[in-house]
Amino acid sequence: MPRARAGLAPTGLRPVQLLSGHGASRGTALGRARVRLAHALEVAEQRVAPQQVDKELKRLHVALDAARNEMHDLRQRLQGALNQEAGEFLDLHALLLDDPELLFGLDELIRSGPYSAGYALRLQRDRLAKVFDGMDDAYLKSRMDDLDHVIGRIHAFLQPVLPPAVKGLAGEILVCDNIAPSEMAQLQSQGVVAIVTTAGSALSHSAILARSLHLPLIVNVPGLLHKVSDGDVLIVDGSDGSITVNPQAENLRDYRVRLKEHAREQRELGRLRSKPSRTRDQVDIALLANAESLEDVTQAHAFGAQGLGLYRTEFLFLQRNELPDEEEQFHTYRDAALGMAGRLVTIRTLDLGADKADRTGLTLSNEENPALGLRGVRLSLARPLVADTQLRAILRASAYGKVRILIPMVSTREELLAVRRRMTRLTAQLRAEGHAVSERVPLGAMIEVPAAAFALESFIDLVDFLSIGTNDLVQYLLAADRNNEALGELYSPLHPAVLRLLKLVIETGQRHQIPVAVCGEIAGDARLAPLLLALGLTEFSLHPGTLLEVRRAIRESDLGELRARAPKLLAARDRRSIERWINGN
Amino acid sequence: MPRARAGLAPTGLRPVQLLSGHGASRGTALGRARVRLAHALEVAEQRVAPQQVDKELKRLHVALDAARNEMHDLRQRLQGALNQEAGEFLDLHALLLDDPELLFGLDELIRSGPYSAGYALRLQRDRLAKVFDGMDDAYLKSRMDDLDHVIGRIHAFLQPVLPPAVKGLAGEILVCDNIAPSEMAQLQSQGVVAIVTTAGSALSHSAILARSLHLPLIVNVPGLLHKVSDGDVLIVDGSDGSITVNPQAENLRDYRVRLKEHAREQRELGRLRSKPSRTRDQVDIALLANAESLEDVTQAHAFGAQGLGLYRTEFLFLQRNELPDEEEQFHTYRDAALGMAGRLVTIRTLDLGADKADRTGLTLSNEENPALGLRGVRLSLARPLVADTQLRAILRASAYGKVRILIPMVSTREELLAVRRRMTRLTAQLRAEGHAVSERVPLGAMIEVPAAAFALESFIDLVDFLSIGTNDLVQYLLAADRNNEALGELYSPLHPAVLRLLKLVIETGQRHQIPVAVCGEIAGDARLAPLLLALGLTEFSLHPGTLLEVRRAIRESDLGELRARAPKLLAARDRRSIERWINGN
Repeated sequence: MPRARAGLAPTGLRPVQLLSGHGASRGTALGRARVRLAHALEVAEQRVAPQQVDKELKRLHVALDAARNEMHDLRQRLQGALNQEAGEFLDLHALLLDDPELLFGLDELIRSGPYSAGYALRLQRDRLAKVFDGMDDAYLKSRMDDLDHVIGRIHAFLQPVLPPAVKGLAGEILVCDNIAPSEMAQLQSQGVVAIVTTAGSALSHSAILARSLHLPLIVNVPGLLHKVSDGDVLIVDGSDGSITVNPQAENLRDYRVRLKEHAREQRELGRLRSKPSRTRDQVDIALLANAESLEDVTQAHAFGAQGLGLYRTEFLFLQRNELPDEEEQFHTYRDAALGMAGRLVTIRTLDLGADKADRTGLTLSNEENPALGLRGVRLSLARPLVADTQLRAILRASAYGKVRILIPMVSTREELLAVRRRMTRLTAQLRAEGHAVSERVPLGAMIEVPAAAFALESFIDLVDFLSIGTNDLVQYLLAADRNNEALGELYSPLHPAVLRLLKLVIETGQRHQIPVAVCGEIAGDARLAPLLLALGLTEFSLHPGTLLEVRRAIRESDLGELRARAPKLLAARDRRSIERWINGN
Repeated sequence: MPRARAGLAPTGLRPVQLLSGHGASRGTALGRARVRLAHALEVAEQRVAPQQVDKELKRLHVALDAARNEMHDLRQRLQGALNQEAGEFLDLHALLLDDPELLFGLDELIRSGPYSAGYALRLQRDRLAKVFDGMDDAYLKSRMDDLDHVIGRIHAFLQPVLPPAVKGLAGEILVCDNIAPSEMAQLQSQGVVAIVTTAGSALSHSAILARSLHLPLIVNVPGLLHKVSDGDVLIVDGSDGSITVNPQAENLRDYRVRLKEHAREQRELGRLRSKPSRTRDQVDIALLANAESLEDVTQAHAFGAQGLGLYRTEFLFLQRNELPDEEEQFHTYRDAALGMAGRLVTIRTLDLGADKADRTGLTLSNEENPALGLRGVRLSLARPLVADTQLRAILRASAYGKVRILIPMVSTREELLAVRRRMTRLTAQLRAEGHAVSERVPLGAMIEVPAAAFALESFIDLVDFLSIGTNDLVQYLLAADRNNEALGELYSPLHPAVLRLLKLVIETGQRHQIPVAVCGEIAGDARLAPLLLALGLTEFSLHPGTLLEVRRAIRESDLGELRARAPKLLAARDRRSIERWINGN
């Protein structure tokens, strides 16, 4: 059990220490370490509904039994071979599990809140900690460590989720066992400047997110939690995976050199703004931008995006109580078209679902599985007046640029036919009213429902282009909610089924001469660019902030070589083999 | 607008009337009609959390605006060509929408409950109905109809869900526009003896359910709601789609003849118990049973099932507070093995998810999308002690019959490897403890996560057999929660992607000589048997109650002819084409 203790150690008093791991997201940072233990019980206050109290009590007692069984099993397996001391520790832990001091009041705590079992456990632990702290006897004081261990085990059995994010303070470097994808953005917004983990992979979903956020990340540093204590000053460099603990003057000088290097790198990257996205063997790849604000549009234009591959419209509907009217929408879409100055502008119709922060009342509030519910085009077809207002605004904006319409969550031919009919009717209506509408507004479908990917041939005659939304596609294909921390690393684009389906869609598109883009997170990850190129992708749509890095990756790639290696990629049977392929093996 | 009024009409006073529709589920029934209007506002009391009040208020006002817009649009479109009277009605309706009597108090009602917008609308409607009822003036009284229409439109815009089930009384026949799959079982348990609908299809998910419940269903009866009134006595026959309204003596005699015919049919079906499930061209098809109780096992054996294709174990864990221990589980599984007397017994490990009624505390209670969460093998791997207890019990039962183990929700090769390792360890452990374990216990995977279907080659070397769980597979493939009524008929196995994926899995299994069964609802539907046979399926697993009907369908099929027609089935681009194929066109 790691013993990194809390408390600030004055920097000068501890010797410098060099650690290294796998750099998973570039960039260098200097900051104090914030150590988070695996089962540190940093459970935020969680009250539950009164009718859930019984369930929480059961969860607690199942976890207690599980922890007791585990202890019992361990004790039995170690019998004989076991050295005396370890056995005694186990016995002590087993005793603690039946300790009335520990258990007394837990049930009552759950009922009185009513609290979740996890939070009650944490409250009880804090109470006991105070009692132990007040003791004079060093031996008794040290029993708190054992109690923490036992409580940690119970907590682990309560539910296999990673502990929630610590309250990161600006400028801190998070040091922990592992990190959940859902925490990543939150940690950055709390001011965390870098993350270092014991476990993890440079190709995990978390790592993909860290790169898209430009948050330095080093993974796979064995023994990390033994070597770094809370409050230690660290220098981390995500480019080479190096960690300097308690840096001295020379290390700090080196840090400044690294910072300059990083800035120089960024300047070099900046030079790619006006360069083509062309592979070493002279194949041009289209880089389009994902945007959801006028700033994104400006950045996309500045970085040389060939257009907007995905202009999201949800921002017009969220964080407000009234639906935007046709005029407001028209002005927004028109400005995006004007901002791209004649380049492609792909406007996606509303993709709200009950999972998003909708205050307009458009979405349903009572869905058991919102991700499998009334969202995307389904919601639009169920709210015809809202959908018509949006389509009218987009069609009017089409007179100001090269506007295309992209439909989210398509799963049947029937849905696309319904949208096409509406577009025809509204275009005629608008023209009759004297509005200008472009001669031809191309219609595209998001491929994010597995059925749409797998039965693409059944409706490809109805679309002018396709955009694969890998974020949702992976979620449905694996039946794994990407925000569900209990699933650990199950949600991953690096699954054989995902690669095969991507290839199927890309090839089907090519056969029918329908352009196919990928607009999910993976398109914006430079490390995955070779994989997507090997699968035949020629069009990426990504956040403008990662555009130049992907362009660099493309310029460093040899398409012929990648395609020659593609069969090996498609034969991969598990994630590790796919990761090996990406790493060049 | 249909004007079927409430109230019991004495049978003798109304003339007999014959209607006809599509028979969607066989069987004949006699009973009083319970008419449910499309937007009859039969909203069950629904309180909402205080923090949801704002959302409900918004929903209401969005719906009010939508209804006003609709009325306005309609009025404009009808201008000119419109006859005077219809226009005046519309104006009246538009006025009602701005009527302070209607709107006054709705906001307050939502806040005071706090109630859902739908329930507040219903309360307000009932208040106004009392006021109108008390009026003497016939004209004013009739305005309640207009008000009902307007309220119905607001309700329709509130959310596009079918109205919830009426409280069916024993012996009644439900007459309505359409029926949601989720209502079907509930209606039967409430005593409804048959269902007749204006819309619908004989191949909808609802119809599939009706057949598996042996609940007579007639769909597609145009004008039904105009012709049948609440309380009318009906005779319906799901075999020929006939409906007799207000039957006279001769019709009642005919009904008794039909009843006898039906009983004779059932007896004939009974003779198939000892007959082989062999197609006309002499190909044997395996029929296995789905079971979750000892009664099912007995029935499966009696009806000549070749074994249990799916023995569910959730019932051991639900409706109780304590987890079942190894002994209890062992006895249950052993009895199933003994009950099947040497035939195949496929025991599926626990497939609990947060969506089921778990009181043991095993599952997570806070998942945003439980269907995409910690369920099936994921839960088992996260609760190793619980999983080990179950695996030990199954392995011990394997000494008493031909037991196989089936793993639910498999999505990666890694999961199957983890299960295989556990089985090996536990088998050794059990033998060391002196328990008998069968020489070889075959391991199978449920194919219900699309990724598993699509990347089957990546793990097929690890399994001995496969079982396609179409209920969940369709749900994930279409990203459509099958219990979400707002999605209407979107959830359907009759989607080109579903058919192609079934074919892919069946063919991959055949190529590797791994048997493949289908164990979802569609396997138990005699009407879909030709479709499954055409796709190459040779093993069905179904509820014993539908076994004989499917056997009859198989015996009436010519496999060669079906397979010759298969290319046309696989080329279908929408549901209607697939339905046509099933209907022989």
